[in-house]
Amino acid sequence: MYDNMVFLNNTNFPLFFRAGVSFILSICIALFFYKVIILWNKKKNRIGEHVRDLGLTGQKEKEGTPTMGGIIIIASTLIPTIFFSTLSNIYVIILIITTLWMGGLGFIDDYIKIKYNKHGLSAIGKILGQIILGIFIGSTMYFHKNITTISCKNLYVKTPHSIAVEKHGFKTTFPIIRNEFDYANILSWHNEKWKKYAWIIFIPIVILFITSLSNGANLTDGIDGLTAGVSSIILGTLSLLSLISSNKIYSSSLHFIYIPNIGEIVIFSFSFLGSLIGFLWFNSYPAQIFMGDTGSLTIGGIIATLAIITRKELILPILCGIFFIENISVMVQVFYFRFSKKKYGIGKRIFLMAPLHHHFQKLGYHESKIVNRFVIIQMMLSMVVLILLIL
Amino acid sequence: MYDNMVFLNNTNFPLFFRAGVSFILSICIALFFYKVIILWNKKKNRIGEHVRDLGLTGQKEKEGTPTMGGIIIIASTLIPTIFFSTLSNIYVIILIITTLWMGGLGFIDDYIKIKYNKHGLSAIGKILGQIILGIFIGSTMYFHKNITTISCKNLYVKTPHSIAVEKHGFKTTFPIIRNEFDYANILSWHNEKWKKYAWIIFIPIVILFITSLSNGANLTDGIDGLTAGVSSIILGTLSLLSLISSNKIYSSSLHFIYIPNIGEIVIFSFSFLGSLIGFLWFNSYPAQIFMGDTGSLTIGGIIATLAIITRKELILPILCGIFFIENISVMVQVFYFRFSKKKYGIGKRIFLMAPLHHHFQKLGYHESKIVNRFVIIQMMLSMVVLILLIL
Repeated sequence: MYDNMVFLNNTNFPLFFRAGVSFILSICIALFFYKVIILWNKKKNRIGEHVRDLGLTGQKEKEGTPTMGGIIIIASTLIPTIFFSTLSNIYVIILIITTLWMGGLGFIDDYIKIKYNKHGLSAIGKILGQIILGIFIGSTMYFHKNITTISCKNLYVKTPHSIAVEKHGFKTTFPIIRNEFDYANILSWHNEKWKKYAWIIFIPIVILFITSLSNGANLTDGIDGLTAGVSSIILGTLSLLSLISSNKIYSSSLHFIYIPNIGEIVIFSFSFLGSLIGFLWFNSYPAQIFMGDTGSLTIGGIIATLAIITRKELILPILCGIFFIENISVMVQVFYFRFSKKKYGIGKRIFLMAPLHHHFQKLGYHESKIVNRFVIIQMMLSMVVLILLIL
Repeated sequence: MYDNMVFLNNTNFPLFFRAGVSFILSICIALFFYKVIILWNKKKNRIGEHVRDLGLTGQKEKEGTPTMGGIIIIASTLIPTIFFSTLSNIYVIILIITTLWMGGLGFIDDYIKIKYNKHGLSAIGKILGQIILGIFIGSTMYFHKNITTISCKNLYVKTPHSIAVEKHGFKTTFPIIRNEFDYANILSWHNEKWKKYAWIIFIPIVILFITSLSNGANLTDGIDGLTAGVSSIILGTLSLLSLISSNKIYSSSLHFIYIPNIGEIVIFSFSFLGSLIGFLWFNSYPAQIFMGDTGSLTIGGIIATLAIITRKELILPILCGIFFIENISVMVQVFYFRFSKKKYGIGKRIFLMAPLHHHFQKLGYHESKIVNRFVIIQMMLSMVVLILLIL
């Protein structure tokens, strides 16, 4: 058994083969467990989520649908990762910790919802958990000795020993002009000595993306297949970007930052993509299973972390535009309601209902149509990102 | 205006940028025209397809849905191609001819259905049209002087003038063992002199793929979003393969056959992908427009042609597994019905209804669920193909 795992974990074994097999394996694992859960739930019908009453047609049908899909998403991501990737790799360790931490946070939330009250974990509790994770990821990415980058410009410079210059600190990709960008430059512009304090800027940015994306994914999770559909396109894009960054030839030909040892995260992201697709098999309209907060918080956290690891976090506002807009729609709705109540005495609404996807539901669009259109918009966003980065 | 087009057509302009912009442009063109047609149809309601009566629920709702979606698929593919690709390129010419020919064939079929009878063009008429196209594509690919390949093994061989050896004739990729394979080898194994008659084997293979795929796509077109959804995944895969084959660096690092001048077809395939996605915006359940035979025959023809151009036609049985299985399900059903009628006196059926997707509909699955699951199966097939080719 152990020998076998060493063989599979062999980093000389072609990366794409391991990634592709992980993808298919994680779909199969997911399909198997979902089928078991759905059959088991039909008999017992006990772990059903209390669906929020929105006055929408067909909503009552959703009562009794099991919400433990998120646990299977996590399991079917981690099993192929353990088999096929190198577990000593720092990036893989970061991703596994993210998965378990956000999964745990979501699970506590779901558990409280089922057992105690329908509100779940308090907003402060959730955000605190996300901030702690953000601090961990930010400081690891900034200070860990094995985390380095090589500028594509230095990749083929013939130094005496032809060793490319590896750099610590956090270099990232600035979209549109596609320049390599060091957070330290913001400070050094003011005073050269401040350069070493760049983490003071970097860590809050990491926290910002992790909280906004995991909450965005959480809010988006309101229609059958919406979060999973949108995030599988995002994951596909990020997998492609990490594949490029992991390879000296591709990253230098496309002017990407080359990141040594990043190849192993491709295994993780393909497994995760597979588990989302396996989930969609049963979650697409009409849904037989929900992901719960265990799933949606984890998805948001993983997307943010993957983007940070591949040094593409500054494109997230475009790539994850849907999650951000769902976030903003809720904020605008709440803010305007309070504002108008204060000013006119009557609370007014901008959207028929927030988050945004419920607005379209109230307008009479079919659930399935809304999901398909959001996925198409996500495809266009992904293509815009690829154009901006690869141009 | 003309100057501007020359600028856009400049082949030095980065390929991926042109492809990405074509993708987004074709989605926008498609969305605009569909919206116009749907609004216009609501007023007049006259070009509706007479929906085949299957005794399925919700079927009557589909009466009156316009079927001219295929024309827009063709238009929104060709417009960005004309703007952004090099029209003198032989591969682009082949693809444009394929599109117009199959589109014309389908249009005649649709026109007969609307004006005269509900069966449309006779089966023999359709197949004859497809065979003529197959002969054209096969002979062009085999004999045209600008169509050559360079084996990845020869790409970086340092010959005295470091010119890689371009080869005529038809080399293709044999899946699984991923060896380059020349159809001439089948004959030369028997007698070396027969090598020059390899087209006798090659052209029938081209005809076989073109007829089976365009009929397969045609049969698959029976549920909202099914053909377009499945073929957009196939197109995505083929676009990736053609991107790799078009680039010396990528094709040599992945052991692909390098095909000079093939880059321009990436523009075409991205435009076509965009027009399919734009179509899905309105065609996904509940459909507001159908593609008709104009669309489905064209889709099948283009997929086959793209695979032949990128020398990946031997993977089509896996990549287009769904189209083949839909074909086979009809054949098996008809054959078994006749066989059992002859033997037992009563015609029996294997599937509740053929083609296959109607079988699942009769089993009670929701249209939207069937489409999503077929798309997921297609994703797995595409991944298997990528593993077999890139491994």
